[in-house]
Amino acid sequence: MKNEVPLIGAEIFIEPGQTPQEIDTWFKRLKENGMSVTRIRMFENYMHQTDGTWDYTLFDNAFEAGDKYGVKIYANLFPATSFTDVGGFKFPRDEAHLKSIGEYIKNVVSHFRQFASLIGWVPINEPGSGSLPEEPFSTKKFEEWKSIESATAYRNRGYEQLGFDEERFLMHYETWFIKWLTNEIHRFDPGKSIHVNNHQIFENVAEYNFPEWRKFLSSLGGSAHASWHFGYFSRHQYAVAMSANSEILRSGAGDIPWMMTELQGGNNTYSGFEAMCPTKEEISQWLWTTIGTGSKGTIFWCLNPRMSGFEAGEWALLNFRNEPSDRMKAASLIAGIINENAALFADATVLESGINILYTRESLWIEKKLQTGGTFYEGRNKGGVIKSPLSYFEALSEMGIQSNFKEISEFDFSKNDYMGITLILSHQVSIPSRYWQCLEDFASRGGKLIIDGLTAYYDENAVCILKDFPFQKLFGATILEFKMNGNLFNIILSDPDLTLQAHLWRGSIRLITATEIGREDEEIVASKNKYGEGEVFWVPSLLGLAARITKDYGLLSVMLDHEAAESISSVPIRFKTPQRGMLMKILKSGASYLTVIINKSKQNANVELNIISSITKNPAVLFADKKGSISDKIVRISSEETMVIQWLK
Amino acid sequence: MKNEVPLIGAEIFIEPGQTPQEIDTWFKRLKENGMSVTRIRMFENYMHQTDGTWDYTLFDNAFEAGDKYGVKIYANLFPATSFTDVGGFKFPRDEAHLKSIGEYIKNVVSHFRQFASLIGWVPINEPGSGSLPEEPFSTKKFEEWKSIESATAYRNRGYEQLGFDEERFLMHYETWFIKWLTNEIHRFDPGKSIHVNNHQIFENVAEYNFPEWRKFLSSLGGSAHASWHFGYFSRHQYAVAMSANSEILRSGAGDIPWMMTELQGGNNTYSGFEAMCPTKEEISQWLWTTIGTGSKGTIFWCLNPRMSGFEAGEWALLNFRNEPSDRMKAASLIAGIINENAALFADATVLESGINILYTRESLWIEKKLQTGGTFYEGRNKGGVIKSPLSYFEALSEMGIQSNFKEISEFDFSKNDYMGITLILSHQVSIPSRYWQCLEDFASRGGKLIIDGLTAYYDENAVCILKDFPFQKLFGATILEFKMNGNLFNIILSDPDLTLQAHLWRGSIRLITATEIGREDEEIVASKNKYGEGEVFWVPSLLGLAARITKDYGLLSVMLDHEAAESISSVPIRFKTPQRGMLMKILKSGASYLTVIINKSKQNANVELNIISSITKNPAVLFADKKGSISDKIVRISSEETMVIQWLK
Amino acid sequence: MKNEVPLIGAEIFIEPGQTPQEIDTWFKRLKENGMSVTRIRMFENYMHQTDGTWDYTLFDNAFEAGDKYGVKIYANLFPATSFTDVGGFKFPRDEAHLKSIGEYIKNVVSHFRQFASLIGWVPINEPGSGSLPEEPFSTKKFEEWKSIESATAYRNRGYEQLGFDEERFLMHYETWFIKWLTNEIHRFDPGKSIHVNNHQIFENVAEYNFPEWRKFLSSLGGSAHASWHFGYFSRHQYAVAMSANSEILRSGAGDIPWMMTELQGGNNTYSGFEAMCPTKEEISQWLWTTIGTGSKGTIFWCLNPRMSGFEAGEWALLNFRNEPSDRMKAASLIAGIINENAALFADATVLESGINILYTRESLWIEKKLQTGGTFYEGRNKGGVIKSPLSYFEALSEMGIQSNFKEISEFDFSKNDYMGITLILSHQVSIPSRYWQCLEDFASRGGKLIIDGLTAYYDENAVCILKDFPFQKLFGATILEFKMNGNLFNIILSDPDLTLQAHLWRGSIRLITATEIGREDEEIVASKNKYGEGEVFWVPSLLGLAARITKDYGLLSVMLDHEAAESISSVPIRFKTPQRGMLMKILKSGASYLTVIINKSKQNANVELNIISSITKNPAVLFADKKGSISDKIVRISSEETMVIQWLK
Repeated sequence: MKNEVPLIGAEIFIEPGQTPQEIDTWFKRLKENGMSVTRIRMFENYMHQTDGTWDYTLFDNAFEAGDKYGVKIYANLFPATSFTDVGGFKFPRDEAHLKSIGEYIKNVVSHFRQFASLIGWVPINEPGSGSLPEEPFSTKKFEEWKSIESATAYRNRGYEQLGFDEERFLMHYETWFIKWLTNEIHRFDPGKSIHVNNHQIFENVAEYNFPEWRKFLSSLGGSAHASWHFGYFSRHQYAVAMSANSEILRSGAGDIPWMMTELQGGNNTYSGFEAMCPTKEEISQWLWTTIGTGSKGTIFWCLNPRMSGFEAGEWALLNFRNEPSDRMKAASLIAGIINENAALFADATVLESGINILYTRESLWIEKKLQTGGTFYEGRNKGGVIKSPLSYFEALSEMGIQSNFKEISEFDFSKNDYMGITLILSHQVSIPSRYWQCLEDFASRGGKLIIDGLTAYYDENAVCILKDFPFQKLFGATILEFKMNGNLFNIILSDPDLTLQAHLWRGSIRLITATEIGREDEEIVASKNKYGEGEVFWVPSLLGLAARITKDYGLLSVMLDHEAAESISSVPIRFKTPQRGMLMKILKSGASYLTVIINKSKQNANVELNIISSITKNPAVLFADKKGSISDKIVRISSEETMVIQWLK
Repeated sequence: MKNEVPLIGAEIFIEPGQTPQEIDTWFKRLKENGMSVTRIRMFENYMHQTDGTWDYTLFDNAFEAGDKYGVKIYANLFPATSFTDVGGFKFPRDEAHLKSIGEYIKNVVSHFRQFASLIGWVPINEPGSGSLPEEPFSTKKFEEWKSIESATAYRNRGYEQLGFDEERFLMHYETWFIKWLTNEIHRFDPGKSIHVNNHQIFENVAEYNFPEWRKFLSSLGGSAHASWHFGYFSRHQYAVAMSANSEILRSGAGDIPWMMTELQGGNNTYSGFEAMCPTKEEISQWLWTTIGTGSKGTIFWCLNPRMSGFEAGEWALLNFRNEPSDRMKAASLIAGIINENAALFADATVLESGINILYTRESLWIEKKLQTGGTFYEGRNKGGVIKSPLSYFEALSEMGIQSNFKEISEFDFSKNDYMGITLILSHQVSIPSRYWQCLEDFASRGGKLIIDGLTAYYDENAVCILKDFPFQKLFGATILEFKMNGNLFNIILSDPDLTLQAHLWRGSIRLITATEIGREDEEIVASKNKYGEGEVFWVPSLLGLAARITKDYGLLSVMLDHEAAESISSVPIRFKTPQRGMLMKILKSGASYLTVIINKSKQNANVELNIISSITKNPAVLFADKKGSISDKIVRISSEETMVIQWLK
Repeated sequence: MKNEVPLIGAEIFIEPGQTPQEIDTWFKRLKENGMSVTRIRMFENYMHQTDGTWDYTLFDNAFEAGDKYGVKIYANLFPATSFTDVGGFKFPRDEAHLKSIGEYIKNVVSHFRQFASLIGWVPINEPGSGSLPEEPFSTKKFEEWKSIESATAYRNRGYEQLGFDEERFLMHYETWFIKWLTNEIHRFDPGKSIHVNNHQIFENVAEYNFPEWRKFLSSLGGSAHASWHFGYFSRHQYAVAMSANSEILRSGAGDIPWMMTELQGGNNTYSGFEAMCPTKEEISQWLWTTIGTGSKGTIFWCLNPRMSGFEAGEWALLNFRNEPSDRMKAASLIAGIINENAALFADATVLESGINILYTRESLWIEKKLQTGGTFYEGRNKGGVIKSPLSYFEALSEMGIQSNFKEISEFDFSKNDYMGITLILSHQVSIPSRYWQCLEDFASRGGKLIIDGLTAYYDENAVCILKDFPFQKLFGATILEFKMNGNLFNIILSDPDLTLQAHLWRGSIRLITATEIGREDEEIVASKNKYGEGEVFWVPSLLGLAARITKDYGLLSVMLDHEAAESISSVPIRFKTPQRGMLMKILKSGASYLTVIINKSKQNANVELNIISSITKNPAVLFADKKGSISDKIVRISSEETMVIQWLK
């Protein structure tokens, strides 16, 4: 899959009531529109007969059409479940259930492995479960796990610990089950590609153990439906939400490829939390965003609307006459451009800026566990610890700068040199003890740390570590107090010379080796500390969330431009000044750079780029859906337009 | 009851603690105020002694007073239940419970049948239950039903179906239980009138099988308490809400009479969802609205406030000194007018316009089942499929035009000629297959169909029917797509030449035989199709709800005036132009027309009427509670006033 | 404790992980800051070893430090419970649990009674439970209680009654358990002081039977955390909320002393319903408010932040460096002033104005039971019956006048003379029958009654008493009707000549012996009645809540100034005119008056006082945290300032 051209396609939803002719038509439509991949949900309900026999006819129709039209198929296992179970169950209920899943796999895999169009198995749809189910099998597995898993080795001086066994086990158990499914598949179809799509990323991410999954998956995937999954964003932010979702998947995938397994293709009526139908512009924005984040493809959900049950008549790229919608035409156009530039896109990889926004799963666990209700504040309600790093991602996007969005375990702390690398830890209330030395090493080897909010308030067990602060040496300072200071208030910095807004709590600092860079009411509120070859910028107030709340990243960008200068200076092409509501992604491929620029502001704009001098040749516009153009360093881009530009080094 | 003069009265609430003198006083008050009917809740709790014996004394006091003052009594069965059960249980819990209910009926009916004042039995108070209870008896009955009831004969090409067995069974079970109670009563009081009052009509209507009830009821009734039941309306809309509630009951009653069994009479403190006390003007509006919808009477809830438990001290027409409130005086005045014009009102029946707003119970079932939460939109949240037809009812009310409000099963599709008849299907997301041919026949025989919203999206099993659209021939067109298009947007029509607002989704159309009458962004959004002798006007966007959301029916009325012209032209008396916040009801009686006009706008008004030329004599104002008058075609009516005018043909 | 100087201190939170040195430091900090008392939670979890042995070391460290630094310790029992149980369980689960609690007490009390620093036991933390738990022990006790407790003797003419057995039993059971704990403690440490802190006072108060507690407690206490407990108030009202909370405790304590056992000392992050950190000014306001209400001390929650579990790092007076915060310095300053004026404060008692705001626990029970949801109105939703009397408390506070805030059972109805005494019954929907004669006697002996809202709508069983109104003689009038009249409306009074606003319901009156003092729409809406030596002012509309909703007590104060004139004239020092956002408390001590004045308005102010002529000497400012001063009768006080002034009689 690596170095292969990204595949664009759409899921074909197969259900009884459909005719072979219809099914054939749908594969034909894919082919006609330059789409080369689909995914099919392999309902046991529709194959396994009440008398125990198996009738694969309905799905054979689909695979035969796949073979006929040269459309590749990801087969998504879907063992028997109730008709009203929209997404499928996440775990076996009991031993008998596990066994019946095995039987299903044996039958289905043995049968469908014959088809040339089958390129891989998706062992489970959207494995995220949100919480551990109370079922016999889960309970038994949990007991087993507890008896084996020794308590965390680290115990902060003997303080009692809030247990996160359920959260830790859920992560383990989910991984175990996907791996079990993978093994069962491989018993009957050895070596076939395995792909998994996780969903509801901004809420469920803490339960996904991507580094472990990599070990047995062929590629990582995701479901990114604005209507279901982007509740932390407004509609004009969906492009940057897609970008962040994509970066999380890319980081999770590590060395294996990733693709977007499900992407909202059409209108929802009763289903979905937000009623919407993507515009053709949004389809282009989302598709190019996944490509611009190095994906090896995207499969829309879905090509044809299912006719029955929840979601009937919804979500599709085709209209009710089986004709391409404007959204499908938009996707088709992009598929064509990718195919025409196959080598270019096959080799394209993300050009990293060196900026890494890190989150910790323990922060999400702790934040969730400590909710007590009451007045809503972004920073202390559920979601605060993920929205806070997202605000830095959004600010950098408006600067035209790629940034990695990583769970801390996904960052490589083993290198010898971190010059030009920046880590942002924004309101990560928990920094597990196993990373304390890592962060020191990172800075001592030249890395830059940008820290805000209540970062490092707790260890991994929700023990407060501010009293015996493990980062005293690294930060060159300690916390005196955090005080609630209002929804928004000012933090006046001297280096850079800048007044930023902050949210909710203001932390005050006692300097040790650090330098004061901000003071308020006789309290030091910001500091910088040289540490080894590196440096730590610390404002223990919520700068990121304040910018997000005020919907203005202007000043936060100025700070980032100053503090992450060493990373930013390496970026070959970026916005000269931050562009409100815009974003830029960048790929490299051979001698080319590829930039994806999206204008989500309400205005058409002339945007000046900052381009490194080594780029001398004229750039080529590969895609622009509203006649956008570039001349010299000025990009002319309309509101809602997406542009893809190729640059020669 | 037919051709009898409507009865006005109020429920006398009997409870231990009351004295015979008090009870006597309440009957006396009814008589003094021209009221001739009451209803009494026959609490088993207050008759059946702990030793198993029966003491009827408390209720004997009431019936003796009824006999003495010539007040007719509806006896409302109320078998033993907990004191905190405000409305009474809806179903027997188990066999023993059923048996005890039978024992109660035997005792109570056998005893009270002796009284001359007893004119009928109400076997159960407000049978609506909202959902099927999980109790042994219900469960057993459900199992029995499932074993007998074959699955619906219709299966859409084999698509899987969302089950609505619970909903279908609840409807069956409710009917069964009322009929069982009726039979038990008739065992001991053969042939006595049976009356039932349903409640929470706009939410519960889908569970009431009125056509089946008609077969054993003597008359149909309802509870219409603004504080409990009119949550889909604002206070200034309560008169039109009462009108719609009344039309639903009238349609449900069919050939049997109907009356309003409970109507809010007084203030509520802690009970009720909306805190309010009806004004005397509201009492007049509500009472005349029920009369103007052909009711055979109205019983207020209640005459005397109960002193104990939930609702203590609330809801009454009498004050705490047992004197008539201003509300009671208003009701008394109307009772007097009706009695003075007994023959006129006895013969009065609703003069139908030929316009029928239809809803389908399956639309309510499906809408409820498919709720997923998220951002609120009128059109996709619970209530949308009933508010949408209500918006047409409200628009027609402001035009001064009666309309029928019918479950589709209550409409008579068996006629040979539908010239001048209009059916409105507004956002009825489900059209069951058993009506597909009916609707075709209706149009082919001259009927006019007005269709908006997501009407005909699903069949009765929530299978989407837009792909193989059964109305393709009738509508002469099919759906391409529905797309969410914002809370409000424009639909520009060419026939009539008019820009209407629409809500939420915009449907686009592929024409077959139909004519385009609206286009947007290169998509056809409205069509007309001649079919046989009839015509179909189709705008698959939510026109009705948009008007309701914007609180402005002006342009919707213009459309209706144009599209329902053949029905409207038959109406002898109506507003010349739509009157915001007003409504008109019309009755015929012998050589007379009777019009009820209510002004719920904030302004006093001079309203010009459109009167057919055959009406030549001067009209007579039978009632006007703020000195309203009529001269020539101009009605002078104050804000909040109700006027009743008699016209001679 | 009586005639002892009030003690200021802070809870030291002891948990594993702490070092003896740290613990020593905390006691040292108390001493350094003039603080002489602490409270320690005696976690069984941290003493009782898994092998059944006891290891007291951790807590011995604390008591040894207490002995060393002369800091007095209240030991708060905390039997074994789960780590996530933040406040501790409220009742034993079963017999075995009760026994284990007894074992715990035996061990802990026997061990720690040896320490000189131990001054008392707190048998349970915050006993309030909100509702009766469904556990075997509670259930058994409830059954026992029901078999012994005869039904209430009073039955209103035989009307059926809503049962409040659960509420009555909870009150009984809570008292029983605290007493049982007390007895167990005294078995091993006879005669030692017993103190209990109740919490969430404005919601839980109906379950606290203070008069019964007095019989075995040495002193009464409370927890008053703005973040958890002051949800009925906005932040600028927290000082008056603290004042009301204090008056409730003072009234509950009766003849025994009271102190504030827990007072929010620091910031909360995830815990608490409202995110906040008290300012140093608020610390002064709250501390002086408790002193000004005659408390014998205040213990902040807490000195050192706990490091583990819920609330880790939160709530503390010390910062993370174990240094005093600005809040601790403020508290320390006040402790110093109190210690410098030890005799003065030791003898200080509240100088009562003679005004008593009464609430009835049955009003809270009934209001809660009758909730039906729907549109929110302050007066009919949960909390209305306590917010309504609070509005009078707030109005009187702005007038600079102390008022008692008492459950009706806490008022002494046995006196022979009530001249100059005023009772306010504001929206007390239930007046239990046992107080009917008391209230008559009160008035006949010269007392003044001020009645508003739905006071006396129900008896103690939620039976409506308006029909046979037991206060007909006392009020000289009866109710005709209550009618919902809008969120706010006017009541025009003639005596005093004044237009007040009212909320929700308007009651109309039939006069018997009373005089009309207000009329609207031909209905009498206000009356006065001379009764014996006293008088009743009655407006059956919600005057208090209307003032609270509009945030303007100006006109309500004018009414109170007029109607409570006989009480007010006895007050030696008060504001000349009502001061919006201010409050005054007054103590007497020997030949001195002590006034606490707090300015919660946004403006600095010059406030003129009304001072009785017998006070001739110049007053002395004992405390002013923003340079406030007094000259002649004018107090100059800044926004947020607290001033304490000593006057010589």
